[in-house]
Amino acid sequence: MPVKILYNGDPRLAGTWVPALRKAVAAKGVEAEILASTDTPEAIHYVVHSPKGEIGDFCPFSGLKAVLSLWAGVEDIVGNETIRVPISKMVDPSLTEGMIEYVVAHVLRIHLGIDRHILHQNGVWRQRETLPVFVARQRTVLMLGLGALGTACLKALADLNFQVSGWSRTPKSIGGATTYSGSDGLDRALALADFIVLMLPMTADTRNVLDGRRFSLMRKGAAIINPGRGPLIDDDALLEALDNGLVSHATLDVFREEPLPPSHPFWSHEKILVTPHIAAETKPATSSMSIAENIRRAESGEGLLNVVNRDQGY
Amino acid sequence: MPVKILYNGDPRLAGTWVPALRKAVAAKGVEAEILASTDTPEAIHYVVHSPKGEIGDFCPFSGLKAVLSLWAGVEDIVGNETIRVPISKMVDPSLTEGMIEYVVAHVLRIHLGIDRHILHQNGVWRQRETLPVFVARQRTVLMLGLGALGTACLKALADLNFQVSGWSRTPKSIGGATTYSGSDGLDRALALADFIVLMLPMTADTRNVLDGRRFSLMRKGAAIINPGRGPLIDDDALLEALDNGLVSHATLDVFREEPLPPSHPFWSHEKILVTPHIAAETKPATSSMSIAENIRRAESGEGLLNVVNRDQGY
Repeated sequence: MPVKILYNGDPRLAGTWVPALRKAVAAKGVEAEILASTDTPEAIHYVVHSPKGEIGDFCPFSGLKAVLSLWAGVEDIVGNETIRVPISKMVDPSLTEGMIEYVVAHVLRIHLGIDRHILHQNGVWRQRETLPVFVARQRTVLMLGLGALGTACLKALADLNFQVSGWSRTPKSIGGATTYSGSDGLDRALALADFIVLMLPMTADTRNVLDGRRFSLMRKGAAIINPGRGPLIDDDALLEALDNGLVSHATLDVFREEPLPPSHPFWSHEKILVTPHIAAETKPATSSMSIAENIRRAESGEGLLNVVNRDQGY
Repeated sequence: MPVKILYNGDPRLAGTWVPALRKAVAAKGVEAEILASTDTPEAIHYVVHSPKGEIGDFCPFSGLKAVLSLWAGVEDIVGNETIRVPISKMVDPSLTEGMIEYVVAHVLRIHLGIDRHILHQNGVWRQRETLPVFVARQRTVLMLGLGALGTACLKALADLNFQVSGWSRTPKSIGGATTYSGSDGLDRALALADFIVLMLPMTADTRNVLDGRRFSLMRKGAAIINPGRGPLIDDDALLEALDNGLVSHATLDVFREEPLPPSHPFWSHEKILVTPHIAAETKPATSSMSIAENIRRAESGEGLLNVVNRDQGY
């Protein structure tokens, strides 16, 4: 009897995902049926999930073995009490690669002051004012969050000679990086960084992790890059820190409300670059293979990969 | 008797360079005198040179042992027949680092389409239109010129998963890169690249190496990045290739005439980013150490590093 898998992501993307998942499970040798909707939830073994999916109540799914998230961030389902089976988060090579590219590109963009050139193509040769003052080895990047994505980005930045440091809730060791943990550790790490990148999971503990007090601890003129989650930053405190010069620039890909409303002050602030949640996309071809591998493992008794710790929240 | 070294770079920068050189030769244990000008050219042993220096006729320097270029590019002095001693070009770690940062930053900038975000912070959430289509491993960067700078940049791009290829006049082998040589090799390499970076020395052979014929051989929509030398590209042919869509974008740091005149069409072209020759600066602290090491070697009979082959022109 084939394994029954329900796609519960963005309905507009079902035409892309369902065939990709079908191809991926076949490649993994799993006999499976992929459905975009169902009248018999009790017959479903796995739900492939994103917050864009229509199903939020999993009670009718009495035969469910696991929920497989299409997203790396799982804050929308980790507290869902109708889910009584393991939840796996997405760890996908192309997602990681996209995130590395975004983070490295924007750290270098700020480091080299590239916006000045793009915004002022007006015939004035500004060599002295725009010569980079520092090389990367003179600048420190602090990564908040040392999961799969944060660690991979930090390694890429270290390859480019940036001094790298990282902070995580619990102590972690990463070759070549100075690491910090706990609340005190964060305060100390912030004081030593020129670039601060947010790659933390969204939990009750990480909400507003960068607030007014933390901005005041930063090295004057530090730059923020947030491809993680919007509520990690206190928006009003960020605006104040930018306006009083504590923070020199913020590059933001994620927001409390998405799409970011047209009237939001972030759009027009001269020290903020808004990008529309494009830092790292879950790509069907490779992500489907990660999901199919997890289903193969579960069906053969090998155990799921990347299972969420629901107490921690990620 | 101390070695006599004359600084013949930009006179406005003598106040920075002379002390840096003095410190560097002392650190290398060479007893030397550093001069910013001289009435007794016959007493000078080494000239530290850039094209911004005032001295062009080296005939009076009858005691000269070597000319040490402050610049990596030596096209302005390689044909100077009044120089009858070896010329060494600048190979400096901070110059290489700066060049890596510029090249990686701008390849990623074009790859991810970052300009669209910087130029359109107007409240419109353009997620679908701006999601990156490719990850780096699906894109090929071709480096024209495989000297110290080109090779280092290629390695950094390979670390970020770009497919890398390189072209040089004579065959070279670089781990992980597909390499080409000779004129036919260049034609073949151009057809396979998404990003083409120019890092060639300026010689009679490399002038206009990218001309109308070569632009027509490129993969449609390729992007050009030139932090090398202006005359490597035929300017009119580039404008035509941009206008007819053969080339999608050009990022140019170097020009036939610098500063680039305010009226030059490059400034206002929507597919060109002009940067004012800032890709990689010779930094006094580290470059002076490279020069001092070369003087120490010459004085102790170890032989100069990075001597220019004047027939090749670099």
